[in-house]
Amino acid sequence: MKKQAKSNMVIAQSGGPSMVINASLCGAVTAAKGAKCIGKILGARHGILGILNSDYVDMRKIGAKKLDAIAHTPSSALGSCRRKPSAEDCRAIFENFKKLGVGYFFYIGGNDSADAARIVAEEAEKDGYPLVCWHIPKTIDNDLRSCDHTPGFGSAARFVACALKGDDLDNRALGGVKIDVIMGRDAGFLTAASALARVREDDGPHLIYLPEVPFSETKFVKDVKAAMKKYGRCVVAVSEGIRGKDGVPIGAKLGSGEKDSHGNVQMSGTGALGDALAKLLKEKAGVKRVRADTFGYLQRSFPGIASENDYYEAYDVGAAAVEIAMADKAKYGVTTGTVGIRRRKGKRYGVSFWSLPITEAAKIARSMPKEYIAANGHDVTQAFLDYARPIVGDLPECEIL
Amino acid sequence: MKKQAKSNMVIAQSGGPSMVINASLCGAVTAAKGAKCIGKILGARHGILGILNSDYVDMRKIGAKKLDAIAHTPSSALGSCRRKPSAEDCRAIFENFKKLGVGYFFYIGGNDSADAARIVAEEAEKDGYPLVCWHIPKTIDNDLRSCDHTPGFGSAARFVACALKGDDLDNRALGGVKIDVIMGRDAGFLTAASALARVREDDGPHLIYLPEVPFSETKFVKDVKAAMKKYGRCVVAVSEGIRGKDGVPIGAKLGSGEKDSHGNVQMSGTGALGDALAKLLKEKAGVKRVRADTFGYLQRSFPGIASENDYYEAYDVGAAAVEIAMADKAKYGVTTGTVGIRRRKGKRYGVSFWSLPITEAAKIARSMPKEYIAANGHDVTQAFLDYARPIVGDLPECEIL
Repeated sequence: MKKQAKSNMVIAQSGGPSMVINASLCGAVTAAKGAKCIGKILGARHGILGILNSDYVDMRKIGAKKLDAIAHTPSSALGSCRRKPSAEDCRAIFENFKKLGVGYFFYIGGNDSADAARIVAEEAEKDGYPLVCWHIPKTIDNDLRSCDHTPGFGSAARFVACALKGDDLDNRALGGVKIDVIMGRDAGFLTAASALARVREDDGPHLIYLPEVPFSETKFVKDVKAAMKKYGRCVVAVSEGIRGKDGVPIGAKLGSGEKDSHGNVQMSGTGALGDALAKLLKEKAGVKRVRADTFGYLQRSFPGIASENDYYEAYDVGAAAVEIAMADKAKYGVTTGTVGIRRRKGKRYGVSFWSLPITEAAKIARSMPKEYIAANGHDVTQAFLDYARPIVGDLPECEIL
Repeated sequence: MKKQAKSNMVIAQSGGPSMVINASLCGAVTAAKGAKCIGKILGARHGILGILNSDYVDMRKIGAKKLDAIAHTPSSALGSCRRKPSAEDCRAIFENFKKLGVGYFFYIGGNDSADAARIVAEEAEKDGYPLVCWHIPKTIDNDLRSCDHTPGFGSAARFVACALKGDDLDNRALGGVKIDVIMGRDAGFLTAASALARVREDDGPHLIYLPEVPFSETKFVKDVKAAMKKYGRCVVAVSEGIRGKDGVPIGAKLGSGEKDSHGNVQMSGTGALGDALAKLLKEKAGVKRVRADTFGYLQRSFPGIASENDYYEAYDVGAAAVEIAMADKAKYGVTTGTVGIRRRKGKRYGVSFWSLPITEAAKIARSMPKEYIAANGHDVTQAFLDYARPIVGDLPECEIL
């Protein structure tokens, strides 16, 4: 009887990679290895595409040592995709699952991936296919409403803060204006994390522009002029998703216009926004030396600099997803959901995990709360710094003369 | 008598910052503190501009602990400049030196900075101003003929190799073509270092384009198509300095055209080259997903990832400059020169320092030797990897499924 209750599991990764998404994969696989009712543990390559192509890795065959090495490796070891499953996709998925005896499905990713998992769960229910279907949160954008902060954000934010620390020192040496364009389509958390680079009163970034605050070219030029007057130099952190009063992203106006199947316009992997802002300052702010860097994909997959808290939380949330799914299944039968992340109250930093409806993570993204954005519209507040610091961890110390 | 022989010293930093140029500063200052014939140790802010403005930091007042923290901090702690000294500048410099009793001048930088030191030394001789004038090598470009490799290169190369390691994993996850534009106006060493990221046969970068090999758009498209066919994806490392058969840099054609006082065209701090190459591939190679990142200033000032060998060599070359200058002065009177770096023969990696005429480092840059460039024109050889690996050090290990 117990043997018959065993069912196989599929796990996959989706959306943009992160430095710790493999930790979540390995946390979930390790927990699944210890779960009595899970048989085979199959990793689908490239998200749901791997299911559609029946392209699986037998995760039980991956030894503990290799699994640990994978957990510490950035990017998505199973490969990723940006496919929104159609009803037809879902039929094909359930056919494959049925053939392989799959009763558990875990999908690691951001809000689009949560939405994909929601679609799969809803279609499974419609079709009467008994599927335990869970979303495991991940996104460097930190924009899931279901999480105090998302696994992957802390490490990407650590890259951004380290980069700004170094870049501010570079700007001290050679002067002028330096613009750094940071990932974040709708939410400014990652760009805001640049503020963690500051230690001294005159440390950069001196100006921070978020997608949550309508961007005005006139104000930008004025802000830079004022910073140049005050500091004799200026470091600017700009989110790739900054948008004008009309709500249209400045970068999308300048970029390729390429869209993925979730309808998102491509913003990363092009230097257009940074170059346009640099040109604007040369022409309108009268600054001779203006340089712009677009951090691009480095901020999500750079090896060796992950935040320690982020790594462990990513591992734990993967394990928690499997444990919660098992417990809920035992109590309620087939279930679906996402794992929420709550920050523990009190002085000592820590998190706990809880079960939430999958819709809490799907589609609708979270923006920076108002209390994290400075009144001047080009900075963050102390509340944001207090929120972000334990997630990102200590940064390398730098000294100046 | 001995007391009268004491003379003050000025030290400064020039050109592009690096992750370890402060180690050279601190190595030289520490050696100077122990030299009997050196009185005051003055750090000029922003290279020769600090001398012209008499803007000095009393380096004897900087304690050992702070000096050590400075040594481990990226960028140029004294600030930098890109000023080529005119004869008029030199007159003003000697006037300032005379007033302050300066008899020793050390200038840390690349070939343009060596040339600046050469000009100062020659003008001092013309004017009969007794100046011990030395250049201390630094450049992430690794293009000084006087050095087996230059301090600063190893750490920048480490950033590049780490970035490519992560980026290759990112490309494995989402596919398509990824182009990474890496610093290097005339020499391809830094771009070549991207090859250190490879461990497995199919690891990227799959194509490497150096300024030493004339760049052909037609060949580029063909190479990418072949790599896509072989690997199903493609990671490209491109030097910002790649140039067509006519010798004109492709990036300069697309960039702002801004020049510094040494006549160098601005290439970094703009995403134009990467964007143009991405556009070319979308149009001509039929690849849908093409992304380009320009590493920009991150590769020279990122804190916390310096190569250990690079750090110690940078510190030692600073100390060696002061020691060699003192010894040569005792033997020959007033002297001028640069410090060469030789790799010790034998299996165990190590370097030694020696005295060379300053012209050996000045102006004329070194390119990648032919034996480091693969016959196919888009890769490096094993000889290059053997050369570069000890300078860059071990990289984070990454595992794949």
